[in-house]
Amino acid sequence: MRIVVLAGGIGGARFLRGLKRAVPDADITVIGNTGDDIHLFGLKVCPDLDTVMYTLGGGINEEQGWGRTDETFHLKEELAAYGVGPEWFGLGDRDFATHIVRTQMLGAGYPLSAVTEALCDRWKPGVRLIPMTDDRVETHVAVTLPGSGSAAGAGERKAIHFQEYWVRLRASVPAEAVVPVGAEQAKPAPGVLEAIAEADVILFPPSNPVVSVGTILAVPGIREAIADAGVPVVGLSPIVGDAPVRGMADKVLAAVGVESTAPAVAEHYGSGLLDGWLVDTVDAACVERVEAAGIRCRAVPLMMTDVDAAARMAREALALAAEVRAV
Amino acid sequence: MRIVVLAGGIGGARFLRGLKRAVPDADITVIGNTGDDIHLFGLKVCPDLDTVMYTLGGGINEEQGWGRTDETFHLKEELAAYGVGPEWFGLGDRDFATHIVRTQMLGAGYPLSAVTEALCDRWKPGVRLIPMTDDRVETHVAVTLPGSGSAAGAGERKAIHFQEYWVRLRASVPAEAVVPVGAEQAKPAPGVLEAIAEADVILFPPSNPVVSVGTILAVPGIREAIADAGVPVVGLSPIVGDAPVRGMADKVLAAVGVESTAPAVAEHYGSGLLDGWLVDTVDAACVERVEAAGIRCRAVPLMMTDVDAAARMAREALALAAEVRAV
Repeated sequence: MRIVVLAGGIGGARFLRGLKRAVPDADITVIGNTGDDIHLFGLKVCPDLDTVMYTLGGGINEEQGWGRTDETFHLKEELAAYGVGPEWFGLGDRDFATHIVRTQMLGAGYPLSAVTEALCDRWKPGVRLIPMTDDRVETHVAVTLPGSGSAAGAGERKAIHFQEYWVRLRASVPAEAVVPVGAEQAKPAPGVLEAIAEADVILFPPSNPVVSVGTILAVPGIREAIADAGVPVVGLSPIVGDAPVRGMADKVLAAVGVESTAPAVAEHYGSGLLDGWLVDTVDAACVERVEAAGIRCRAVPLMMTDVDAAARMAREALALAAEVRAV
Repeated sequence: MRIVVLAGGIGGARFLRGLKRAVPDADITVIGNTGDDIHLFGLKVCPDLDTVMYTLGGGINEEQGWGRTDETFHLKEELAAYGVGPEWFGLGDRDFATHIVRTQMLGAGYPLSAVTEALCDRWKPGVRLIPMTDDRVETHVAVTLPGSGSAAGAGERKAIHFQEYWVRLRASVPAEAVVPVGAEQAKPAPGVLEAIAEADVILFPPSNPVVSVGTILAVPGIREAIADAGVPVVGLSPIVGDAPVRGMADKVLAAVGVESTAPAVAEHYGSGLLDGWLVDTVDAACVERVEAAGIRCRAVPLMMTDVDAAARMAREALALAAEVRAV
């Protein structure tokens, strides 16, 4: 079975670990979000790709869900001592090595997809991990920062990097717009469209529908390829009981005019893209609404408390795909 | 009193610490060797400048004489896990921060002298540290590596970076030539010639006469400025009892046809440059030979066992300079 998964960071990575346990012999291709990528200290950092790679390769910090296990932060402390920031982005000493190797290879002319493959040679994640594009795409968030000027109540409206919004501000101000800068000019990385065309099933893990899956779909050609693949496309809701399972998906959903509920996210993807949708059992009442939108829906437990729970979710997603296919 | 010191790495740095203790109110300008500089992992590493900065700024690893105190090597371990080397160069996690900041600033267009000043803003070494040049100079060593081909006894002659010779090979093969590549085209960094012109005394610490002090003197204009400064120029022998106090100075002295003895090094600098020369008490018998070469010479203890010993050496050097001036 050939499975294509569109993945963001922690949610995508943990789902993938469950998927691998559920179907150990499947041929899994992961199309990774690179809209979160950021240049820090002259280095190219790809948080989502690394979270997938470290999680599946056994190097992840399990508690926090990102970064390396047994990590130290001496380099970052020293950068701060030099007055060089940002301090709000937590790069550890071990993690730095990944960014240094990546930056060196990019500097030598290798595209990000080749670099990612080389990094995975070490981690052996057991999936084929491809960045959505080799081109630069950077998710920016339009916000109004609290006013500090003389005009009463007047704030400064500006577009900031997604990481600044997410990590530094912790989504503490409303996201007025989310723009994947550069996406329109980006081309899918080599292998992305081929993997979609050859897939038996395509899965959207419970990743952020706006800044993770949404950014991948914003690369011209990918959404169309998925819609045209002619195979079941099944997603899992990242919203459980009107709140994100983790992260702050509700903050960016508002920016695109989508309410923070499981059925609203399904409708946001739409029946032109999505064939099946899993909601949590607490959202069982909304199954009917999703199906009314032309998307087959089931209510199953969606809390990824451990790898077994993630594996059960993956099996449910594949079962729903089989149902779709059988129609 | 304005003192200019031409410094390499460990020997120069430890001497400078002694000099600062000996004359706390002196205005000290250090012209640092950059021929040892190397690009590693896409980063610009300046071993000698950093050794001076860390030693005088209180961040040095006292036991080894280079690198940072309380250092960890997680980043380097990870690079090795990626198969990315060289493994023979010991960059620690804290040390990496210096190279990252430097590389970022150089990339932003600042010359190395401005970058060094910025790094010193943190370390406050208590001296003005200027690289000999803002241009790229790289010391290469010509060696014949043991033959591995079919021709019996035939080795491969090649030029390797000084660090590869010094750190990786540990000077285990003869240095056939030492070439400061790029020196001929290099210009002294801003402030270098001015500091020399305004100096009251110029000191050569017991640094390597070929690959440290010699490289600085190879930058056109510096040797001439020192010779023309009209102030005492006093050096301290890095050779004690026919062997280098530390390091492998004898290996590179042979490459320039100089025997590894205290008087031979003085003669190598020559009376056109050097006014005074300190040899160790074990070399007292050679004082006459040095003076016959037109260089005033004294035999004093030259083992820098601690800061006090280094301070005594500095006082002896300044006393010899005063003698020279009084003539």
